[in-house]
Amino acid sequence: MTDAAGRPGAESAAPRLVTACVVLIGDEILSGRTRDSNLSYIAQHLNQIGVQVREARVIPDVEETIVSVINEVRARHDYVFTTGGIGPTHDDITADSIAKAFGVPIDHHPEAMAILDAHYKETGGEFTEARKRMARIPEGATLIANPLSKAPGFQIGNVFVMAGVPMVMQVMLDSLTPRLEGGATMCSRTVSGQIGEGTIAEKLGELQKRFPDVVIGSYPYYRGKSFGTSLVMRGVDPVRLDEAAGEIRALLEGFGVEPIEGEPG
Amino acid sequence: MTDAAGRPGAESAAPRLVTACVVLIGDEILSGRTRDSNLSYIAQHLNQIGVQVREARVIPDVEETIVSVINEVRARHDYVFTTGGIGPTHDDITADSIAKAFGVPIDHHPEAMAILDAHYKETGGEFTEARKRMARIPEGATLIANPLSKAPGFQIGNVFVMAGVPMVMQVMLDSLTPRLEGGATMCSRTVSGQIGEGTIAEKLGELQKRFPDVVIGSYPYYRGKSFGTSLVMRGVDPVRLDEAAGEIRALLEGFGVEPIEGEPG
Repeated sequence: MTDAAGRPGAESAAPRLVTACVVLIGDEILSGRTRDSNLSYIAQHLNQIGVQVREARVIPDVEETIVSVINEVRARHDYVFTTGGIGPTHDDITADSIAKAFGVPIDHHPEAMAILDAHYKETGGEFTEARKRMARIPEGATLIANPLSKAPGFQIGNVFVMAGVPMVMQVMLDSLTPRLEGGATMCSRTVSGQIGEGTIAEKLGELQKRFPDVVIGSYPYYRGKSFGTSLVMRGVDPVRLDEAAGEIRALLEGFGVEPIEGEPG
Repeated sequence: MTDAAGRPGAESAAPRLVTACVVLIGDEILSGRTRDSNLSYIAQHLNQIGVQVREARVIPDVEETIVSVINEVRARHDYVFTTGGIGPTHDDITADSIAKAFGVPIDHHPEAMAILDAHYKETGGEFTEARKRMARIPEGATLIANPLSKAPGFQIGNVFVMAGVPMVMQVMLDSLTPRLEGGATMCSRTVSGQIGEGTIAEKLGELQKRFPDVVIGSYPYYRGKSFGTSLVMRGVDPVRLDEAAGEIRALLEGFGVEPIEGEPG
């Protein structure tokens, strides 16, 4: 058995957790050139429909690595979401690598070709050989619509392949969302207070023991000269979360600290 | 043989690549609550001293996961850097999990105890049992100084364990840097132009073939109504990078596009 956070050991009657892995593909994230913003966006979006991101990987544009990581994580999670590497240039090798991971051929997909052909006719751009690369889709995959810049993503098995540019990734995520089947939805409550973690840690640990079905995270914050701790409770049962939040408010008040609802302003 | 980017297949006389994996530990990153900024900071910092981040993992505060991931990546890379989970609260389980990964006992470290004891005496805080948790260090580890908030990180084998709070992580990274032995330093050049990726992709691919020792990344950008492509060249030989950059400038000019040095403003 696992508890609401997938931790082993605790008994729980909660609905099944549906889990996901996010794979960020791109040399530019590992070199530090680009600071990723897709992971937090995807995680928040999926959580709303009952899919929990339990792992993320950042990997380079290297075929062998993409193949082995995709095959590892698609076996371990209900869903896998990738970002990056599906543009028209030589360094965009995600689609070919995913085909290899699934052991299927890859070719220009008729529907993707039609979408791009119409797009370049409309915009007056040339539908170059390079741009046709963006229509290369592994056999058996279904397209993911991209209303913004047209070149589609695709789904094969439980793997969803999206663009790396955040605004394109976001419209693709909207397009694919109806295909997902969520499980338990993790709810959360946040209570903050101007108190050091070390001061409340002991009583907080005792409280956590009495709420095995609620995962309590403690996060120090610094806002200029103001500092304190945000306590985030996550779990599938809103009633239990409210109970835990009430106890945390009382805990803070016991230390003479005024509880702040949510994150500090 | 691997080339300058660790891609297999190309012959290269470059000095040995020293590689690293960054492991971001924390439920709050996977839930989307916190958008990580540590990975890009660590990657840029390490690159300056010749250590290349080639992989990153984001994992939850789950002991079993931390143990298996740490044991996997420490065998595969020269260095491993972790962030998060070394505070005083019940959800800070990184130190204990790392001890378990290395199969060593963990206890209060005399030097860490002395540092924290002095700190709380000076600041008038109570050195609670919970705060003493921050002095729990696996046997055989050496401390990583934390001039900012005192509670130290630690190094065991090739694994460096740091705080998750960015400003604390950054001073720890400074503290540990003299212990690292870098290899080849990856240099980079960036040339941008107001041109679509699809337009230059074909010639860019040909250029990449003539520069197997330079990894050329192509990244579209959007700045309001301005859009274009940034071409990032990375490799260990500055002379070859300058040659490639010269060819890319000529390529852009061939399309009637003015080359912009670096990222677009």
